[in-house]
Amino acid sequence: MNFLSESLTELQKQLQKLPSIGEKTAQRLAYFLISQPKDKVQALADAMTNAILKCKPCSVCFLLSDSDPCMICTDNFRNNELLCIVESSRDIYLIESTNEFKGKYFVLGNLLSPLNGIGPNEIRINELDNYLQKNNVTEVIIAISPSTEGETTIHFIAENIKNKDIKITRLSTGIPYGGDMEYTGTTTLLNAIKRRYPV
Amino acid sequence: MNFLSESLTELQKQLQKLPSIGEKTAQRLAYFLISQPKDKVQALADAMTNAILKCKPCSVCFLLSDSDPCMICTDNFRNNELLCIVESSRDIYLIESTNEFKGKYFVLGNLLSPLNGIGPNEIRINELDNYLQKNNVTEVIIAISPSTEGETTIHFIAENIKNKDIKITRLSTGIPYGGDMEYTGTTTLLNAIKRRYPV
Repeated sequence: MNFLSESLTELQKQLQKLPSIGEKTAQRLAYFLISQPKDKVQALADAMTNAILKCKPCSVCFLLSDSDPCMICTDNFRNNELLCIVESSRDIYLIESTNEFKGKYFVLGNLLSPLNGIGPNEIRINELDNYLQKNNVTEVIIAISPSTEGETTIHFIAENIKNKDIKITRLSTGIPYGGDMEYTGTTTLLNAIKRRYPV
Repeated sequence: MNFLSESLTELQKQLQKLPSIGEKTAQRLAYFLISQPKDKVQALADAMTNAILKCKPCSVCFLLSDSDPCMICTDNFRNNELLCIVESSRDIYLIESTNEFKGKYFVLGNLLSPLNGIGPNEIRINELDNYLQKNNVTEVIIAISPSTEGETTIHFIAENIKNKDIKITRLSTGIPYGGDMEYTGTTTLLNAIKRRYPV
């Protein structure tokens, strides 16, 4: 696309680095942006710059937040005895949107993935230990997706905590709501049979 | 998402204004961005600011370009007698990628759409007249998609040019390459029958 415009090519190249944005989408977005009013595009560029400047991990739970400690850690109406362990800040938003959980959170930052060089030192296991020592937590809910790396991480955390007097739970696994048995993988189905419950 | 971070909410809001970016994707992109190294995000923000500052319509053909006249208009190896009329700058890139067309281009900017308040004054019909008077064009190829608005525009342009001694052509319509007759719309099929050609 060099013959058209260098700045446009650069914009497309940068957009293509975003997840799930391929060459075609990046091209479409780039053309959309340069045909927009300048102030609208500037608002998007500024929002990016602003977000990376302001969003920092909370020093207590490591949620990416504008304030430190974050608004969840400083919320006195939340149950301090319940701690939900998640992989990333985004998971907290997903869980909050259910309006079901009223405890506190802890962000691990990564899942164990030896093949990608992510070992116990690359997840916040020491910081978690620290958190559990300072706070009177009675139940830890490990809210991590049941993937290969997720399962490894869930068991690693459970192993680390088990000597403390803390109940350890994880999210239920099974057929998703609205799902069809026909299109459910064998492992999921196996899990659903094992974890069947009375109606 | 306010409880998490205002700057993040703003970023998500801005991202959601992009075409085909819904709430979920905007959220995912926003979290992706704030978890990236600062300089990478800044590079994207800068590319945006830079592109809207530098990309301006070429004064000859109205292609959005860093230089004026653009690199196509100043390319002496191109056939000046062939003019391809397109809706937007992006179409030029699509056509260039076929490596088939070696003439010049003209960007209309819009398609006629009376329902959306886009009449003859909102497309560059006078500028096109001007271009045709200044340049010795022998064939005009109208490369506009065969939608309702596209058809209206194609016929409007053809009507405007017909008194000049210029051959007027449009892109072929029919079943797309690799397409299946079973999944081809009636209008397309009708068109394909009407425009059948000897093997």
